[in-house]
Amino acid sequence: MAEHLDLNSDLGEGFGVWRLGDDAALLDVVTSANAACGFHAGDPGIMRAVTTGAVERGVSVGAQVSYRDLAGFGRRRMDIAPDELTDDVLYQIGALDAFARVAGTRVRYVKPHGALYNSCVVDEAQAAAVVRAVREYDDALPVLGLPGSALLRHAERAGLRAVPEGFADRGYTPEGWLVPRSEAGALVTDPDSVVRRAVRMAEAGEVVAVDGSTRSMPVESLCVHGDTPGAVELARRVRGALAAAGIDVRPFAR
Amino acid sequence: MAEHLDLNSDLGEGFGVWRLGDDAALLDVVTSANAACGFHAGDPGIMRAVTTGAVERGVSVGAQVSYRDLAGFGRRRMDIAPDELTDDVLYQIGALDAFARVAGTRVRYVKPHGALYNSCVVDEAQAAAVVRAVREYDDALPVLGLPGSALLRHAERAGLRAVPEGFADRGYTPEGWLVPRSEAGALVTDPDSVVRRAVRMAEAGEVVAVDGSTRSMPVESLCVHGDTPGAVELARRVRGALAAAGIDVRPFAR
Amino acid sequence: MAEHLDLNSDLGEGFGVWRLGDDAALLDVVTSANAACGFHAGDPGIMRAVTTGAVERGVSVGAQVSYRDLAGFGRRRMDIAPDELTDDVLYQIGALDAFARVAGTRVRYVKPHGALYNSCVVDEAQAAAVVRAVREYDDALPVLGLPGSALLRHAERAGLRAVPEGFADRGYTPEGWLVPRSEAGALVTDPDSVVRRAVRMAEAGEVVAVDGSTRSMPVESLCVHGDTPGAVELARRVRGALAAAGIDVRPFAR
Amino acid sequence: MAEHLDLNSDLGEGFGVWRLGDDAALLDVVTSANAACGFHAGDPGIMRAVTTGAVERGVSVGAQVSYRDLAGFGRRRMDIAPDELTDDVLYQIGALDAFARVAGTRVRYVKPHGALYNSCVVDEAQAAAVVRAVREYDDALPVLGLPGSALLRHAERAGLRAVPEGFADRGYTPEGWLVPRSEAGALVTDPDSVVRRAVRMAEAGEVVAVDGSTRSMPVESLCVHGDTPGAVELARRVRGALAAAGIDVRPFAR
Repeated sequence: MAEHLDLNSDLGEGFGVWRLGDDAALLDVVTSANAACGFHAGDPGIMRAVTTGAVERGVSVGAQVSYRDLAGFGRRRMDIAPDELTDDVLYQIGALDAFARVAGTRVRYVKPHGALYNSCVVDEAQAAAVVRAVREYDDALPVLGLPGSALLRHAERAGLRAVPEGFADRGYTPEGWLVPRSEAGALVTDPDSVVRRAVRMAEAGEVVAVDGSTRSMPVESLCVHGDTPGAVELARRVRGALAAAGIDVRPFAR
Repeated sequence: MAEHLDLNSDLGEGFGVWRLGDDAALLDVVTSANAACGFHAGDPGIMRAVTTGAVERGVSVGAQVSYRDLAGFGRRRMDIAPDELTDDVLYQIGALDAFARVAGTRVRYVKPHGALYNSCVVDEAQAAAVVRAVREYDDALPVLGLPGSALLRHAERAGLRAVPEGFADRGYTPEGWLVPRSEAGALVTDPDSVVRRAVRMAEAGEVVAVDGSTRSMPVESLCVHGDTPGAVELARRVRGALAAAGIDVRPFAR
Repeated sequence: MAEHLDLNSDLGEGFGVWRLGDDAALLDVVTSANAACGFHAGDPGIMRAVTTGAVERGVSVGAQVSYRDLAGFGRRRMDIAPDELTDDVLYQIGALDAFARVAGTRVRYVKPHGALYNSCVVDEAQAAAVVRAVREYDDALPVLGLPGSALLRHAERAGLRAVPEGFADRGYTPEGWLVPRSEAGALVTDPDSVVRRAVRMAEAGEVVAVDGSTRSMPVESLCVHGDTPGAVELARRVRGALAAAGIDVRPFAR
Repeated sequence: MAEHLDLNSDLGEGFGVWRLGDDAALLDVVTSANAACGFHAGDPGIMRAVTTGAVERGVSVGAQVSYRDLAGFGRRRMDIAPDELTDDVLYQIGALDAFARVAGTRVRYVKPHGALYNSCVVDEAQAAAVVRAVREYDDALPVLGLPGSALLRHAERAGLRAVPEGFADRGYTPEGWLVPRSEAGALVTDPDSVVRRAVRMAEAGEVVAVDGSTRSMPVESLCVHGDTPGAVELARRVRGALAAAGIDVRPFAR
């Protein structure tokens, strides 16, 4: 049984006048903030606000790196050459690190966003390109991603710390993959179920798949969301239940 | 008489498929490379190429920071709030520093580009905003700018090293300002004159203004250009003449 | 006394995943929709939604043109060359007209947004540049703007219809200008006052300035907002009060 | 044997200060100008210059539509939803049509650019999305594309004129597809061969594939390039040879 677990969430996903989610509320719940770095969301002012708010609450800052796609919020896969992807990721890490530094911390990990996250599950070349950027920037930086993904495999091969994360509100296939959003069972909508799944993933390192089978799913972090109604409240409940179960909720890296 | 002088130039000012100037040739001539950081030019791939090329030749890397204006190449003044400008500058410094770091160096100084450069001559608020970004990021970073500018004044007040630069191919008013490009005498087009003015600025710390008067103009760096026909060859001649005059041409910061 | 009046509002001011204001609700209240065209807000999908929704409700579509400044929402003045501004405005009008056309209508008027709106009050060159774009595109298109502005003056000179608009929720100086937002009296926050001022502007063509004096202010349209709490409800009340006063609320152009 | 043929080329592919290819020289050679519309290249000022230049020379203007990808010059495939793609294409057609209109003409056809061109060869959904945009905007507009492509097939089904184009400087597979650029035989570099292939495609409607076999390849337009050294001169030779062979070189649409 795990004695500690991290809670991560995407933050700073506004741009200019636009906002998405309740950053301040989420920062009170999570232990790791995946801060948008300007390619899918997150302008410099927002990056300062997120990093400053994270430091004030002892939350670790991670670079949530993306394809360059503001119009599509980074949700559209791009067939980008690996070298270009490496450089795009480096650019984003460096930009965020400036704000982290000014806020009194540093970027503590890297996590791909949206379509890049999905590409990094199966696309060896893109996963390797992301890992290369992290390794080049600072080989002490962990990479946060899906268990079994090409991303974590390449990270390990490159000598980086590979941190597996789980989703208590997503359905899993018997093989341990996320059920695609277009299919039945993709989302777990009952709050009580989400909380139970979170605690079970933390305590037992396992998850019940959509076919009812139980699958091993050891994770070091749970990803919670803040951009839908009730999401922040649910995240709070998850954190409370973990604490009640004796799990120390704390950053996986600081 | 100065015993050493820096030669700086704007580099990495392409974007995507587009290129501007001959970066490789200029890197063989200058001692400081003002690398574009993505806001007026300079995509991540170009930033890697410039920083790598600079390190190979012992050239210092500076962040050439700009308004966010790709379509206008940063040449259009923007009435941006000081806080936003500070954050935009920080973002650019951090992004470039990632590539500098990977190339084996760090950002060594900051210089505003285009319309922001001009604003920083007279606009106290914008000049202070740029200085604040530099100070926040690393108060050991010098700021490169026009002698007498608000930028250098604010830099000094903030305890930063303020490095004055000169332009051997630009006309000066008797008061020591650059003649606006819309007026007669703005440009010195005769190559021999440019070379002579460069040596005189280096040796005597003075320049002949458009009215024939001589004005004190002590500078630590000369800005040379590479984006017009013959520009690189002229820069080479300037460097040669400085060397012939016994001036040690070397970075003002490394 | 005016027998009819237009109500206009800024619409379609989201981008990508982001939204601003309640377009659907506002479309039920206004008679003219100032649709964002992609330079400060408004992606192609949003432009389709706004134009389609406008046609369904008999609302006229206008091009709300802006500086190219997504990060600043077009709220930062740019010193752009007149020729470039003309071309930027043309681009936006044409892009919106494609969606208007597909929705079964056409762009019916042009109104500058944000900082460009403010520039067009006093900046002769920028105002003329906007007018030139409208005239080149279709000299039957009216221009909507501030009474007394350079924009309306240049529009008239160019033979375009110049449509003056008023703001029931903004304070006016005795000279008939809007009180700057940084000064006291800039905003009229009492809903009842806003409604009364709207009816008076419509019925009597006059407004009470911040010093208590009455100033002639004949307008053909009132601008209402939808991006603050209670704004849509207030717009509804304004429309209701105008109708109750016997004013025919209808588009100034269709 | 064809009695007439069109020569098309990509034009206006600069952005801001950057330029690509020699637009003025190419406009003297081609009969159809595929004008970039701002998503991969082509700012408003450039769009005005291209449309004006085209009208002066009797060259037809086409909208060269792209994914929204300035940083990648539209060369990176994006998994964009069909509805979004339709709207992105509409936006670009409308924007260009504004400049065409001001120049005294209209957009006469639509051709996808770069990665979108390639996607439209095989991707049914994206090809249909592009066709939908064209049909919605003006169902009298032809679509220019690769013979056998999903694009031309969907265009025909939608009742649009589908115009097949050939590439005299590209190798073809025995099945009639372009040899991928990563493979041997992708490019025909010998100028004499290019000219001979152009004339044969025009006169006989056939092309010799990389395996030496002859394949039927009836085309109404040939695509020539202007962005490599000698390209414009080669385009001129192709045009001269077609004329010498008695082929009337003229726009396929005006």
